[in-house]
Amino acid sequence: MSLTRQHALDIDASDPLAHARDRFAIPEGIIYLDGNSLGCLPRNVASRVAAAVEDEWGRGLIRSWNNAGWYTAPQRVGAKIAKLIGAAADEVIVTDSTSVGLFKVLAGALRMRPSRSTILGLHGDFPTDAYIASGLAKLTGTHFKRVDGGDLIGAIDATTAVVSLTHVNYKSGFIHDMRAITEAAHAAGALIVWDLSHSAGVLPLELAGLNADFAVGCGYKYLNGGPGAPAYVFVAKRHHDTFDHPLTGWLGHSDPFAFADNYEHAKGMDKLLTGTPPILSLTALDAALDAFDGIDLHQLRTKVEGLTSLFVTLAGERLMRYGFTLASPRDSHQRGAVVSLAHAEGYAIMQALIARGLIGDFRAPDIVRFGFSPLTTRFVDVFDAAEVIDDVMAKQAWDTPAFKSRKAVT
Amino acid sequence: MSLTRQHALDIDASDPLAHARDRFAIPEGIIYLDGNSLGCLPRNVASRVAAAVEDEWGRGLIRSWNNAGWYTAPQRVGAKIAKLIGAAADEVIVTDSTSVGLFKVLAGALRMRPSRSTILGLHGDFPTDAYIASGLAKLTGTHFKRVDGGDLIGAIDATTAVVSLTHVNYKSGFIHDMRAITEAAHAAGALIVWDLSHSAGVLPLELAGLNADFAVGCGYKYLNGGPGAPAYVFVAKRHHDTFDHPLTGWLGHSDPFAFADNYEHAKGMDKLLTGTPPILSLTALDAALDAFDGIDLHQLRTKVEGLTSLFVTLAGERLMRYGFTLASPRDSHQRGAVVSLAHAEGYAIMQALIARGLIGDFRAPDIVRFGFSPLTTRFVDVFDAAEVIDDVMAKQAWDTPAFKSRKAVT
Repeated sequence: MSLTRQHALDIDASDPLAHARDRFAIPEGIIYLDGNSLGCLPRNVASRVAAAVEDEWGRGLIRSWNNAGWYTAPQRVGAKIAKLIGAAADEVIVTDSTSVGLFKVLAGALRMRPSRSTILGLHGDFPTDAYIASGLAKLTGTHFKRVDGGDLIGAIDATTAVVSLTHVNYKSGFIHDMRAITEAAHAAGALIVWDLSHSAGVLPLELAGLNADFAVGCGYKYLNGGPGAPAYVFVAKRHHDTFDHPLTGWLGHSDPFAFADNYEHAKGMDKLLTGTPPILSLTALDAALDAFDGIDLHQLRTKVEGLTSLFVTLAGERLMRYGFTLASPRDSHQRGAVVSLAHAEGYAIMQALIARGLIGDFRAPDIVRFGFSPLTTRFVDVFDAAEVIDDVMAKQAWDTPAFKSRKAVT
Repeated sequence: MSLTRQHALDIDASDPLAHARDRFAIPEGIIYLDGNSLGCLPRNVASRVAAAVEDEWGRGLIRSWNNAGWYTAPQRVGAKIAKLIGAAADEVIVTDSTSVGLFKVLAGALRMRPSRSTILGLHGDFPTDAYIASGLAKLTGTHFKRVDGGDLIGAIDATTAVVSLTHVNYKSGFIHDMRAITEAAHAAGALIVWDLSHSAGVLPLELAGLNADFAVGCGYKYLNGGPGAPAYVFVAKRHHDTFDHPLTGWLGHSDPFAFADNYEHAKGMDKLLTGTPPILSLTALDAALDAFDGIDLHQLRTKVEGLTSLFVTLAGERLMRYGFTLASPRDSHQRGAVVSLAHAEGYAIMQALIARGLIGDFRAPDIVRFGFSPLTTRFVDVFDAAEVIDDVMAKQAWDTPAFKSRKAVT
């Protein structure tokens, strides 16, 4: 017997995190399954950003660096994120983009293993991470080597300075075994960098407990920090004295206002700062993170598994007959918050879905990807999404020149 | 005979740029002479940022990358800045911080001069620029060499890959001869990077006309883009095919949405992009730049000389007797928009001035610095500032423990 809409409504009625959706301003008339690309707007952000513009900048002017807490925002917001990733408050700082943060920690990791010259990564991992590793390798005369997922642990050897990978794959949602890979890296004398862009806000993380060395992650996906929100960097406390990096800007100086001729790294995470942070975007992220107040991360994880499992079940019942194949793990324990379906006409299908108000995204060459951001997605949204996809496919509504013609999409 | 307040009011009455002040929300009760650190809030910014938060992010969500022009913002805002610095629209892009932008262009310049290994700079130049050059030199095994200002041209030789300096010194306001230094660098086969953070918005610039190679600059000083506004980078069109840099992130890829395994630089300035830009901060800068609409940059320059000259004159009449010395060029043609006065008690004096509503800033070890941002500063503000300083000094109001005790200041 097929699942009904009432079934989904019943799950919502007993969802202990259902109230969290009220913390967000979610537009009427759409089903939003793209919180993995850009999280919804938390309701408290607009007034907080308006205050930063009108009161702090407009009236406080330069005084707001001290009086409105702008200077301490990278650390303050970092401490909020630390709670989501199992780190100490003073192990996380918010600065720059994920790409620039990754450059810093990879460069620092190479310095900490001067007799080794390989950055080890995975084929099919998030492209920007690979691009940054390549760029750094080219600049420093080191080597960026990639292997397939199953070969990773075996490939870590005495030439490996640092292993760099995304914890949850951006396309399939596959969750790598953080404990096993971290231990394997350490057993071989290598360091490890985890990109948590698709993990934080989706599942509990225990960076400190797993003895991870470095992590980076994005503020605008499941953390709901707004378009291009600044990124965060984690450096384990045991490395704070030895770690340094080459993007040495004034805010990373031990005494920025001495305007000293020569650079001296600040202590702790402050040395990860480079230039002046974009305060308005950082303010939005700061406010947005309050949507996680009081949220039990284990309940969050349970909900993610429930949402994605419901979608996988509905896809099995109603969608596979249209030629989709599941491009995500079938086992919910191995799956983050996205479910991807492969289809040769994926691009046009996603355009047709968006036109019908179901917003997911397309990832080349053939993936339609749906993200189930747990604070904002209801089980009934999952049911309604399957209905829309079923209808669009049954009517071949995607098969029009307008939907098949490629343009920039996100 | 001494200058009177009426004299200042008379100059304001005939100032062709006086109307520009109405484009800004300037708080009552203060005299703001710190637009060189953080420009005032343009009136159109609050509504534009609110729309970006509530409509574009809140309602448009991921669709706004296309529909609200987020993708093209780095180029669009760059084109606005290009008009202020004498560059073509497609030679400027907005991305990251000034420090990160400088790292990119210096690294790219070193690659373009592979047989040379020296980055040449100046003692006493803006510290973050020196820190970045040092960090890059350490990473690449090249050399960062600094000389005194008068020795710069003579120090450029066949080992110099790139000369890097701030056009207008942040502390004294001294304007370097951009033409002579650019020509000297080129004559020796070197490249040149200009930091325009204290130039753009203060005087007309002709990067293209002077054949400059690279430039970077800050969005939050005279461009009034808000706290930590993103920075801009200029690369001369003749270098677009050969230039590349190591901070290779996904937005700099020739086809970001192909999510290709290997990096391939985009054409033109797009390759300067790295990670996802902070859209809210970028939106504020975008709107803020409209305050320059219709502003004649030669009139702007004339006003800057007028404002600073009035202050120098008033300082000579009223302030030097308190032990100040002029730490800026006396010749207005050699001076940007700041006038700095040195005083052994500078720190406490600036605290006392701020408490009286006159906001400038202090730069170690002994500089009280006043910035005369031309769109927002009136001649009568200059007069009133001199009055406040005179009064604070006459009463020794700075000589209290509260003002003498050091804390973080901007």
